[in-house]
Amino acid sequence: MTTRGVMVGGVQIGGGAPIRVQSMAKTKTEDIGATISQIRSMEEMGCELVRVAVPSSEAAEAIPCIKQAIHIPLVADVHFDPYLAISAIEKGADKLRLNPGNIRNPEDLARIVMAARERNIPIRIGVNEGSLPPNTRGDSLARRMVNIALEEIKFLEDLDFGHIVVSCKAFDVHTTIEAYKLLSQKISYPLHLGVTEAGPPFEGAIRSALGIGILLHLGIGDTIRVSLSAPPELEVKAGYELLKCLNLRQSGPEILSCPTCGRAKIDLFPIVDKVSKFLQGKKAPLRISLCACGVNGPGEAERADVGMVGGKGKGAIWRSGKFVRAVEEEKLPQALIQEIEEMLRCHP
Amino acid sequence: MTTRGVMVGGVQIGGGAPIRVQSMAKTKTEDIGATISQIRSMEEMGCELVRVAVPSSEAAEAIPCIKQAIHIPLVADVHFDPYLAISAIEKGADKLRLNPGNIRNPEDLARIVMAARERNIPIRIGVNEGSLPPNTRGDSLARRMVNIALEEIKFLEDLDFGHIVVSCKAFDVHTTIEAYKLLSQKISYPLHLGVTEAGPPFEGAIRSALGIGILLHLGIGDTIRVSLSAPPELEVKAGYELLKCLNLRQSGPEILSCPTCGRAKIDLFPIVDKVSKFLQGKKAPLRISLCACGVNGPGEAERADVGMVGGKGKGAIWRSGKFVRAVEEEKLPQALIQEIEEMLRCHP
Repeated sequence: MTTRGVMVGGVQIGGGAPIRVQSMAKTKTEDIGATISQIRSMEEMGCELVRVAVPSSEAAEAIPCIKQAIHIPLVADVHFDPYLAISAIEKGADKLRLNPGNIRNPEDLARIVMAARERNIPIRIGVNEGSLPPNTRGDSLARRMVNIALEEIKFLEDLDFGHIVVSCKAFDVHTTIEAYKLLSQKISYPLHLGVTEAGPPFEGAIRSALGIGILLHLGIGDTIRVSLSAPPELEVKAGYELLKCLNLRQSGPEILSCPTCGRAKIDLFPIVDKVSKFLQGKKAPLRISLCACGVNGPGEAERADVGMVGGKGKGAIWRSGKFVRAVEEEKLPQALIQEIEEMLRCHP
Repeated sequence: MTTRGVMVGGVQIGGGAPIRVQSMAKTKTEDIGATISQIRSMEEMGCELVRVAVPSSEAAEAIPCIKQAIHIPLVADVHFDPYLAISAIEKGADKLRLNPGNIRNPEDLARIVMAARERNIPIRIGVNEGSLPPNTRGDSLARRMVNIALEEIKFLEDLDFGHIVVSCKAFDVHTTIEAYKLLSQKISYPLHLGVTEAGPPFEGAIRSALGIGILLHLGIGDTIRVSLSAPPELEVKAGYELLKCLNLRQSGPEILSCPTCGRAKIDLFPIVDKVSKFLQGKKAPLRISLCACGVNGPGEAERADVGMVGGKGKGAIWRSGKFVRAVEEEKLPQALIQEIEEMLRCHP
């Protein structure tokens, strides 16, 4: 479903733009050095929009310095306090995230909308299951999240403000899917997808892949944020991994590697680990295939840019679908990295 | 879609049974001690069926000893050699996995089917993109996988054999989804879902969650195997995590934990990590909520069995939706574990 495009700084969300990968800095925003350093590291992973918390005037004051030192649009995340929202806008935030669950006064909201219009920046209406008003009508969680988003959208539209992005995040995957499906039937604003408080990195990546991935498979969603109790770089990595698996963004190499079994001729996991570490942050769309035996190994190596098939105490290395040489097991990581480096010279 | 039920030892796959979580031992099958020890550890994680590779007569000979020492059905994975397949059946395997890409001779196949019928065990027709015959007709990968599966199914049906499970695994998520969608339209045998050679643990968990999860969301799939270049216990954990997120199996506690941001009042990740390690292997369906500030924390804590909301240098602990006490930051992991232990006494 094509949504309206909304510009955040120089980055378009929706309206046919690629699905954007975003994340949030986890430093104290007012610790300017730490925040800039973390955002730069997120940029290196390909983060396209970064959000920072603005819970205090010190955090709002830090925005201009941070913006000067980074290269991607900065989104101010504000809860409870309308004056901080206005302050963040005045300090140059490229987008504002408001939680309609905790800024409820219409006059305050109107003042924020005026400030956003003056600076021509969009507002994300960011609903979260953890911060909803009490349930008085017995609606489902998904319906409650969508209703409060729709109310807020109407309020903004009545003020003739249309630079809107919307999210409705729950921890439960089905609730998240239900909420975004409802939203996508009712509005054409771009949707920011996420599963809230998804948890530790491994479990959270699975939960996020399911919630976000099923929606993207249905054609719903314009920007994604994977929330993990982990450094934000890992959230960005997970976001791209997810988009790459769904053929929605091309991003960096992919490793096809076997789970191993009693047929394994070599100790595969350390090789996968070393090759994986070497590929971290590389941008070329290479497929690397690493298999511990000859059952699927040769078939996969044929389709890979660089492939390896485990044999007894050694590995056969393939390049561009052809066998090139056999290498002893202990030299495999180094030999594979050498082959990949040579490929990278062609795809920098 | 309800498929026909097939029994593997005492475990039903399909026919309305819960989606089964399976994995594969990664030890040399003929190393009986190591294989038993690994399978027992997989059983502790809830693995319901275990596959072992049978690439040699030594591996086939090991089957009776392994079976005596484990509590879940054992599946023999055989490639290339029809005699090993027959030998694995005679040695007591509860199910046979055959790859139609590499056992092609009809007489050999007929002999295997006779042996399986005699012992009344099912056969999985396990197609894999890495081991397909050459593409002579220019079909898509998904279509080629499905065609070879359908040919093999017809061969077995012509021999009046119907104890069949089918899989068609590719690395590409869309190819995997397309293949299983085609299969589910054409046959009513139970489907074993998986994304092949999905890669290192983090990337592989995301890829598997997408391929398997989107199919399950469409109502397709009766048993799942998450393939990771990692220990099999992690594959089982990922499998349950995936089913739990889709509300398809209830299994153990879940941690809702926030990603943290500049609002964080405490250092959350070490707390999440300690609580997560404590919960490893626990079976009670508790929801634990761990948030670093008061934006969503109280709302989430209200809905959790045990919740924590970060405050300045301390955390507020909630139980069954009610605040119980505030604890200093450094004592939070211990205090949370104590609360969880008390809850566990009620849900052992």
